Amino acid sequence: MNDRFLRACRRQPVDATPVWFMRQAGRYMAEYRALRQRYSLLEICRHPELAVVVTLQPIDVIEVDAAILFSDLLVPFIPLGLEVEFVKNEGPSIANPIRSEHDVDQLRMFEPREALVHVLETIRLLRVELDGRLPLIGFGGAPFTLAAYAIEGGPSTSYARTKAFMYSQTRAWHRLCSRFADLMADYLCAQVDAGAQAIQVFDSWAGALGRADYREFAKPHTERIFAALASRDVPTIHFAVGTAAILPDIATVGSAAIGVDWRQPLDEAWAVVGLDHALQGNLDPATLLGPTDRLFSAADDVLNRAAGRAGHIFNLGHGVLPSTPLENVQALARHVHERTLKAES
Amino acid sequence: MNDRFLRACRRQPVDATPVWFMRQAGRYMAEYRALRQRYSLLEICRHPELAVVVTLQPIDVIEVDAAILFSDLLVPFIPLGLEVEFVKNEGPSIANPIRSEHDVDQLRMFEPREALVHVLETIRLLRVELDGRLPLIGFGGAPFTLAAYAIEGGPSTSYARTKAFMYSQTRAWHRLCSRFADLMADYLCAQVDAGAQAIQVFDSWAGALGRADYREFAKPHTERIFAALASRDVPTIHFAVGTAAILPDIATVGSAAIGVDWRQPLDEAWAVVGLDHALQGNLDPATLLGPTDRLFSAADDVLNRAAGRAGHIFNLGHGVLPSTPLENVQALARHVHERTLKAES
Repeated sequence: MNDRFLRACRRQPVDATPVWFMRQAGRYMAEYRALRQRYSLLEICRHPELAVVVTLQPIDVIEVDAAILFSDLLVPFIPLGLEVEFVKNEGPSIANPIRSEHDVDQLRMFEPREALVHVLETIRLLRVELDGRLPLIGFGGAPFTLAAYAIEGGPSTSYARTKAFMYSQTRAWHRLCSRFADLMADYLCAQVDAGAQAIQVFDSWAGALGRADYREFAKPHTERIFAALASRDVPTIHFAVGTAAILPDIATVGSAAIGVDWRQPLDEAWAVVGLDHALQGNLDPATLLGPTDRLFSAADDVLNRAAGRAGHIFNLGHGVLPSTPLENVQALARHVHERTLKAES
Repeated sequence: MNDRFLRACRRQPVDATPVWFMRQAGRYMAEYRALRQRYSLLEICRHPELAVVVTLQPIDVIEVDAAILFSDLLVPFIPLGLEVEFVKNEGPSIANPIRSEHDVDQLRMFEPREALVHVLETIRLLRVELDGRLPLIGFGGAPFTLAAYAIEGGPSTSYARTKAFMYSQTRAWHRLCSRFADLMADYLCAQVDAGAQAIQVFDSWAGALGRADYREFAKPHTERIFAALASRDVPTIHFAVGTAAILPDIATVGSAAIGVDWRQPLDEAWAVVGLDHALQGNLDPATLLGPTDRLFSAADDVLNRAAGRAGHIFNLGHGVLPSTPLENVQALARHVHERTLKAES
């Protein structure tokens, strides 16, 4: 098996720097767009045979070193009773967003191994299909980011409703995030039990918080998820964007690896989180929209800052953008491997 | 005259920490919403008598130490030939966004003292109305942020089109930003000549750039604006959000004061930019949506981190949110003054 990715997560030496891309399966691929003509995003997530097809779409055409389960952060919202819809080009919209403690009380209890069995079945099928070729990453959302989606109910740049809820309905906030933490701990452990070989927790919007707020409202809940995952022997990755100011806190949340975005140079991020963590990142996904010479030199800068250190997983600082040319993604993965491949000794 | 704000910009001792708020005139005020029933945003900007009324709306009801010209970053787009519209709740939209070097060539040349004379007239009227009570801040956009608006043409979180343009049409990018730099240098000097007593340059979206990109694509153009303003004897403020990773570069752009958002604690930001700069900020605007005890303790944290040092201008880390209760803004300004007022000696 190609175990570069798992080895790098554990900070073990690798033959070449492992590469995968957040949203490596998605709208930038013609095969995915073709399937989306026939099925909605949630239909694909709900049907294991479709989710398997989409997960595998990039695997054969891009030199990635890991597959990531095709699903959506908000899939667990459906059994909770939150009515999620994906509005074209606008992302998720929730018909009954959470605005009060009463709304938190109305969330349904459920057992992820039953209500989300289709995700676990997708993982089991994927392990068969991958047949040891590549490791499979499972994932879920961190409580702050899930709560932000649930409360905003639509796109936001300020997270004004989320923060107003945190500050004004603090007890309800912590109940909501506790609920998400319990749910995600169960759900992610179930993903591992079904065959996921690593878990990434997305706290995508945590960078909207100042440090004191991050410590009070987000961090304790995310910590519980990583504490639960410690019972399973798989590498964990914590990912968020715009975290330069809260990185020292993220370093102690409990993940083995930390995903950082392009805003902070990788060597400086590593100096903050310490060499006892693997680092994942951190090329600006927009570089894939430009000419390849510029793309490669930006990738080389990331690699130079990683300095061949054990524990670097090459990735973007956020997901592949829908307008990205596939051939640039292919060329980038190949370039990272060629640049870092050690001669056989 | 209340010169706390101007003194703080120059890092001179003050009797109390000066306060003003970005978007202190705006949708959170009932008087403003009432006026907006009758006039569009651009109509208000275009008519000095209306812009004066709106600028003064917060002055009499909130203990602020500065007035800021009511206008919009995109007002200079109109004489350039860019068709700006403000779509309800979505912000600006541009019917003919810039997508090519040809589009850059099509931008009309104009003399700000003529085409934007209504802004300068607003400033002259405001100085008469303010009659020395409070200093008046003028403002404009930095080239990167203006270019991002011009290229995206609508809301964006990834700035994918902007970055693709930068990377792929680099020559056209620099011509566009040069044009903006020249224009803003003229326009902002004209604002000073009309009576603006300080100038804030908004590079609101610069935090979307990694450091190397900031240095290559944004910084040199912004520097030219501050270099031009050096010919006028007024304090300058550089403002951007999400700048923790590029703050060392922002410190050398050439402004007297630097505005930072809430993500980075003020004392740490000050350690980065150095004590030869004044600092403006940096309370999370969302704290104004919560209970006042929490609001005051968050404000106290900002004040404690400023440690009574000369050169602190209290402000939010971004604009007042539309859902903000006016009484919280009033209470916050009063609180900052009470907390920092020095006893007469």
